[in-house]
Amino acid sequence: MNAPTNFASYEVGFDVPALPGMDEADIQTPCLILDLDALERNVRKMGDYAKAHGMRHRAHGKMHKSVDVLKLQMELGGAIGVCCQKVSEAEVFARAGIKDILVSNQVRDAAKIDRLARMPKLGARVIVCVDDLANVADLSAAAQAHGTTLECLVEIDCGAGRCGVKTTDEVLTIAKAIAAAPNLKFSGIQAYQGAMQHIDGYEDRKAKLDAAVAQVKDAVAGLKTADLEAELVSGGGTGSYYFEAESGVYNELQCGSYAFMDADYGRILDKQGKRIDQGEWENALFILTSVMSHAKADKAICDAGLKAQSVDSGLPFVYGRDDVKYIKCSDEHGVIEDAPGVLKINEKLRLVPGHCDPTCNVHDWYVGVRNGKVETLWPVSARGKAY
Amino acid sequence: MNAPTNFASYEVGFDVPALPGMDEADIQTPCLILDLDALERNVRKMGDYAKAHGMRHRAHGKMHKSVDVLKLQMELGGAIGVCCQKVSEAEVFARAGIKDILVSNQVRDAAKIDRLARMPKLGARVIVCVDDLANVADLSAAAQAHGTTLECLVEIDCGAGRCGVKTTDEVLTIAKAIAAAPNLKFSGIQAYQGAMQHIDGYEDRKAKLDAAVAQVKDAVAGLKTADLEAELVSGGGTGSYYFEAESGVYNELQCGSYAFMDADYGRILDKQGKRIDQGEWENALFILTSVMSHAKADKAICDAGLKAQSVDSGLPFVYGRDDVKYIKCSDEHGVIEDAPGVLKINEKLRLVPGHCDPTCNVHDWYVGVRNGKVETLWPVSARGKAY
Repeated sequence: MNAPTNFASYEVGFDVPALPGMDEADIQTPCLILDLDALERNVRKMGDYAKAHGMRHRAHGKMHKSVDVLKLQMELGGAIGVCCQKVSEAEVFARAGIKDILVSNQVRDAAKIDRLARMPKLGARVIVCVDDLANVADLSAAAQAHGTTLECLVEIDCGAGRCGVKTTDEVLTIAKAIAAAPNLKFSGIQAYQGAMQHIDGYEDRKAKLDAAVAQVKDAVAGLKTADLEAELVSGGGTGSYYFEAESGVYNELQCGSYAFMDADYGRILDKQGKRIDQGEWENALFILTSVMSHAKADKAICDAGLKAQSVDSGLPFVYGRDDVKYIKCSDEHGVIEDAPGVLKINEKLRLVPGHCDPTCNVHDWYVGVRNGKVETLWPVSARGKAY
Repeated sequence: MNAPTNFASYEVGFDVPALPGMDEADIQTPCLILDLDALERNVRKMGDYAKAHGMRHRAHGKMHKSVDVLKLQMELGGAIGVCCQKVSEAEVFARAGIKDILVSNQVRDAAKIDRLARMPKLGARVIVCVDDLANVADLSAAAQAHGTTLECLVEIDCGAGRCGVKTTDEVLTIAKAIAAAPNLKFSGIQAYQGAMQHIDGYEDRKAKLDAAVAQVKDAVAGLKTADLEAELVSGGGTGSYYFEAESGVYNELQCGSYAFMDADYGRILDKQGKRIDQGEWENALFILTSVMSHAKADKAICDAGLKAQSVDSGLPFVYGRDDVKYIKCSDEHGVIEDAPGVLKINEKLRLVPGHCDPTCNVHDWYVGVRNGKVETLWPVSARGKAY
């Protein structure tokens, strides 16, 4: 037996699933792999779309949590910067030299506000969302204390049912307070309709987005009457970006999942009624797994369970295989129905995860593959950055 | 505003949710906290039970993935060592000086077998499970190459439907091969009934375990006729340990979740029909979360979503509160129904996660609290160790 011995873990406690130059067959499982060709095509396609429609694309870094993937989106896809959900994520991107960062979320805790207010010192434009008048004074005080400027978007709840205000009156009240607060700048509107992204039917999604657009247009018009300019009107996801792009009111897209795709997004249908993973976008992200037990003839057990993915949006599917099916999941095991009994011990399968964002968040590395070789190893730079 | 400034993250990119000595009120959320008093009571109780019943307790390290929690289980609870599911997890415990380690799983990949076979050099007794004759030669060859001994348990599938063989004949065939293989030692049986642990009714669980015990007894008797001694007969979980302890055939328990508890285990009933989190075990693990938005009167939004937990076994519940309810989850947000409108911005809540194991695996730290103060900060030492 000539086992690979160049994995670093044993002596130093540092695990990597692969090393650049290695054959794809030698990758250690379970791990995340990126099909670099597919990823690059997705990234270019979204970039071309945004450019053709005069939209800024602010790539959502909360999906991949990776400085390297973001840089690809900026270099190949023309993304203008990043949005993310947590201050600690934003710090990772700021330290990596990203100059335009939106925390597309509320920041309320005193220690987090302090971290946020320091971040412009790293050379980044830092933007944050606000949905409560009481937050304005806290953000302003912290920015004054650090001699920085924080830009603020008022967040509208346009259907996601999470953060955000519902009425134009509320938007105006908060926007005016921001505009009047020292060291804050009112920069526009955050309006992401998260709840409709995964509705299968194109027209059903459109109806939800039409309602959101009407709400946002009303708010932007209201701001104008108050002499407040919404420089940024930001939102849009992989299931909706064409609606925002054609709305006449949004000017910035926040798509993230398009780059990797997942099973849950893959199921939604485009205008022609075709699954979006069958033409619009390619699966570029996979959980690579190995068969580790086949003691029962019709069931293979693989090494990717709940600790290699999140199953909140359903189980993964086995990519490119109709003969076998991932049917059950426990902490460290996946059960694969193998009725024809074709799978062999140590055979590798590519799983398309149900939901890419929280799946990426359990892994430390992306293994970038091309033409059967490992080309690169990228850290999931902001993994676990939950604060 | 006097925000805490002693968090290390901003400058060095190293995030901790708390520092020892800090008030509990200043902990950064979302994060995992451990109620150290409750944890110690749980650990002592299981230790006392195992001792009173003449059972070895091999604590399941795959649940907490923490060297510190394991050491507590050994020091306060008399645990004799650890079991875990992955070679890379086992390495973490071996490097920490743990001397008795069972990988309660199959190891088939050449690189992983190589890592496993080196591990005894760290001074640990290393045991692994086998359910396939073809694995025996690979394990033996690696152990010979490194001049070490690997101990092997034959794994029986006694109802979990994952790895393991079903019949005594299969057990005997594999056990004989192990006993005959250079540098391997046949050490017994692994028989964990994972599928029954979460069945609510005590008698329903007992019926499943009775069947498992019969299967294990048959295998152990078969081994005796072949002059093979099952030194270890290992299994048992938080929903079944009393059945294994009274079986007359098991001699080692592998309970893990009892130490932390979670919502899914908490729901199962003891012999008297009482939830096991209402007397048998205490909730010691919580996701600490903060309210970050309350723009809608009846809904509070908290900062713990899918990236702070696994919801495979259902949503968390809010500990000690009947007036509010965690009803929905997205990547970074939890929606809390707050019909009475009582929650305040930055108010902290303790969530009991649906499933502790994969929830612990997304966090980097345990914050140990006692009497309102942060007493300790323990790394989730084997987090992400999936190989």
